[in-house]
Amino acid sequence: MPNIANDPTRKSWINVPENSDFPIQNIPFGVFITKEDVITIGTRIGNSAIDMGALQQLGYFEGIDLTDDMFMQDTLNDFISDGKKTWRLVRNRLVEIFDSENSKLRDNKKHKDVVIFDVKDIEMLLPVQIGDYTDFYSSKEHATNVGKMFRDPENALLPNWLHIPVGYHGRSSTIVPSGVSVRRPNGQTLPADAKEPVFGPSKLVDFELETAFITTDANLMGEPIPVDQAEEYIFGMVLFNDWSARDIQKWEYVPLGPFLAKNFASSISPWIVTMDALEAFRVTGPEQSPTPLPYLQQSGENAFDINLQVAIKPENSEETVVSNSNFKYMYWSMSQQLAHHTINGCRINSGDMMGSGTISGSTPDSFGSMLELTWGGKNPIILSDGSERKFINDNDTVIIRGYCQNDEIRIGFGECASKLLPAIEIK
Amino acid sequence: MPNIANDPTRKSWINVPENSDFPIQNIPFGVFITKEDVITIGTRIGNSAIDMGALQQLGYFEGIDLTDDMFMQDTLNDFISDGKKTWRLVRNRLVEIFDSENSKLRDNKKHKDVVIFDVKDIEMLLPVQIGDYTDFYSSKEHATNVGKMFRDPENALLPNWLHIPVGYHGRSSTIVPSGVSVRRPNGQTLPADAKEPVFGPSKLVDFELETAFITTDANLMGEPIPVDQAEEYIFGMVLFNDWSARDIQKWEYVPLGPFLAKNFASSISPWIVTMDALEAFRVTGPEQSPTPLPYLQQSGENAFDINLQVAIKPENSEETVVSNSNFKYMYWSMSQQLAHHTINGCRINSGDMMGSGTISGSTPDSFGSMLELTWGGKNPIILSDGSERKFINDNDTVIIRGYCQNDEIRIGFGECASKLLPAIEIK
Repeated sequence: MPNIANDPTRKSWINVPENSDFPIQNIPFGVFITKEDVITIGTRIGNSAIDMGALQQLGYFEGIDLTDDMFMQDTLNDFISDGKKTWRLVRNRLVEIFDSENSKLRDNKKHKDVVIFDVKDIEMLLPVQIGDYTDFYSSKEHATNVGKMFRDPENALLPNWLHIPVGYHGRSSTIVPSGVSVRRPNGQTLPADAKEPVFGPSKLVDFELETAFITTDANLMGEPIPVDQAEEYIFGMVLFNDWSARDIQKWEYVPLGPFLAKNFASSISPWIVTMDALEAFRVTGPEQSPTPLPYLQQSGENAFDINLQVAIKPENSEETVVSNSNFKYMYWSMSQQLAHHTINGCRINSGDMMGSGTISGSTPDSFGSMLELTWGGKNPIILSDGSERKFINDNDTVIIRGYCQNDEIRIGFGECASKLLPAIEIK
Repeated sequence: MPNIANDPTRKSWINVPENSDFPIQNIPFGVFITKEDVITIGTRIGNSAIDMGALQQLGYFEGIDLTDDMFMQDTLNDFISDGKKTWRLVRNRLVEIFDSENSKLRDNKKHKDVVIFDVKDIEMLLPVQIGDYTDFYSSKEHATNVGKMFRDPENALLPNWLHIPVGYHGRSSTIVPSGVSVRRPNGQTLPADAKEPVFGPSKLVDFELETAFITTDANLMGEPIPVDQAEEYIFGMVLFNDWSARDIQKWEYVPLGPFLAKNFASSISPWIVTMDALEAFRVTGPEQSPTPLPYLQQSGENAFDINLQVAIKPENSEETVVSNSNFKYMYWSMSQQLAHHTINGCRINSGDMMGSGTISGSTPDSFGSMLELTWGGKNPIILSDGSERKFINDNDTVIIRGYCQNDEIRIGFGECASKLLPAIEIK
C-alpha cells in the first residue's frame, strides 16, 4: 500500500495558512460536534474541520471496505481496530478528495456545506474511548533530574532504568481533551518537618510535557508483540499534559507509585496524528548503553523529530513560553515501550493510550515540568507579565504545542491547552 | 425501598443443596452464554442459572422501569448505571418469582425451559466491561509482612500507611473470569548478586487473595464522594486473584510501582454478590489509630465478615487448602477506599473495579499469598500429595472461595479458579 498522502508537493483546494500544523499531508483523525449537534469522526485541513461521516454518506469512501456507519460514531475505536491498511486507504482517499486538482467535492457547494466547517464552529471531543492508559518514564534527562532532587544526586538513575522502559498504569476516566478545564486537587500532604499529614488543596500543581500514542488491537492475552512489529500497532500520537500534584505525590508514592497525585486529570490534544504522517521525521534515537536485552533491541531510525513547547498563560495576561523540548530526546522508543509492555503477555486493545513520560532535554530551558524548570521551586520563572511561578497558579492555562518541520512541510498537533481551576472547598 | 430479598426464612421452589453459596437470599448477578450460544445477564439459585433476558422478554419484570433490552446485554454496566434503587427492585422481584409460594413460573414448563439452566451447561463471562481497575493495599498484616521481608523489619509499615488507604492503578485488559487459564509471564529479573538483569520465565509466580468491589457512575470529574455516601455507589463484590510475579516485581517496582509483575493476569469470580445480600454480615472493622483525617472518618459497622479460603490443586492430584483468611481483617473499609480515591476529584464510572489488596490475617495460616505463607520461599508448604510448593508451579490451579455464614443463612461467592499454564518460549 503506497503512502501517497505524504507527497510534499501536493496542494489542497482548502486554504492552508502559512505555518499551519494541518497541511494536506497531515490528515489527522478526531471526533467533534458540529454546530447542528451532530457527533462525527473527522479530519482537518488548515482551519477547516471535515465531517467524514457526511463524506461517507455522500459516497466519497466508495471502494474502501468500511462498515456503513464507520465514521458516524463518537469514538475512533472501531476504525482503529480495522488496522493499518484501512487507515492508509482512508488517508490516501482524503488527500485525493481535497487535492487541488480534484474538482468533485471542490465544485459541489451542496456537499461542501455539509462536509466542511470552520474549526471555530465545532467542539472537539475525546477521539477514542481509552481502555487502559499506561504512562512510561522514558526520558533519561527527566529521570535523572527527578533522581537528583528526590533521591541521591550521585546515583540519580535507579539501577533498573537503563534496562527497562519503566512504566506504570494510570487512570483513563480522567483524561480530557484540550479546552476542558481541570481542578486543583485536594489531598493529603506531609509538610516539611511535620510528623502528621495535613489535608487541603495541593500547593504544588505541575504540568508534565508528554506525548502519547494510541494503539490498535494488537495481540491475544499471553502473546508478546515483537519490537520490530510494534509500530504496526500504533495508530498515531497526541500531545499529553499529565497534570501532577507534587506534594500529594511525595507523600503517597512509596511503595506503589503515584496515584491521586496524577489521576485527577490528564489533557490531550484532540487530533490524532498518524504514524504515516510522521514518517518523514524519523531520526536515530539516543545510543543505548548498556545494550538492552534482545527483546528490546532494534536498529534503524525509531525516534521522531517533534518540536515541543510549553507556555503558561495567566488569566488576564499574554502567555510565556517556559520550555522548548523535542520528542527525539526520548531514550526508549515507542516500539520498545510496546514490546516491553507485552513481553509478559499483557493484552493491548484498540484505543489504549501510552504516555511517553515527561520529555526533558539536556538544557534547563528544555525541561518538561515546573519541578525541573524551577528545580523544585528554588529558581522561580518570571513570566512576561512580571509575575513569578514556582508551580502552576489557579486560573493559569498551560498550553503544549508540537510540530515537525523540514524544508518541505510542517506536520503538527495543534494545541493541548487546559486551565487550572481553584480547588473545591471540602466541608 | 424495603430489602425484602433478605428474609432468611424464605425458601425457593428451585432446589438449593445444603451449604450452597447461592440460596434465594443471595441473588448475585452475572453474564453467561447458554447452550444455544445466547449471551444473557442472569442470576443463580442453587445450581440453576437463570436467564434474566428471557425473564424480561416473558414479562416477569413488568412494572419496573427498565430499558427493553436491559438484560439482553453482554455486560452489566447499563444495569449498574441505573443505580441502587433499580438493583433492589430487580432483586426483590427475582425472589418473588422464585419464592416457593409463587406458582407463576414454577408451574409453567414452557417458560422454565427457556429461563432455567443447569450451571454445568452454561459458560460464565466477565460480568462487566471494566473501565478502570484500582488495587488497594489495605491489609495491615499483609503490608507489615511485605515490609518485614523487603524493607526494614523494625519499621515494616511505611509512614503513610496508617493515614492513607494506599492504592495504585492496575490493568483492566487482562482481568479474566474464573475458569480461564493464565500464562506464566516472561520478563526481566535480577538474580541474587548479579549486576545485570536476565530474561526468562518468572520463577516466583504467586497468587494474591483479594476481593474486589464494582462501582456505579458515582460522580462528576472534580467531585469527591463523601465517605458516608460511598457505599451507595458500590454494586457488589467478587473474589479476586491478583496473580503476581515476585521476581519481576522486585526488579521493576521502584520507583513507580508494580507493572508487568501484575498486569499479565488477574482472575475474578463471575457472580457479583450485591452489597444488599451482604447486609446481614456487617461487623465493626479494626480500630484505626491514629484517627484518620476527617474525610476518611466513619462510624458503625463498615467491615464484612466474609470467610476466605485458598486451595492449590496440582494437575493430577487433589487440592490442598493453604490459607484461611477473612475480609473483616481489612484495616481500611471499602467506603474509605472510595472516599480516598475521589477526594482529588477522580471520576468513578459504572463497571470500575477496586481490589482490596492481599487479605492476610494475623496467624501464618491466614496469610493471603505464597510470599507470606512460605516467608519468601524459606518455609515451603507440603501439599496433600506430598509435593512441596514455595510458589505456584506450572499447571497448578489456584482456587479462591468465599462465603458468609450465620445461624440462618450462608451467602457465598462460589469459586475463583484458574490454572497457571507454562510460559511461552520467546525466540
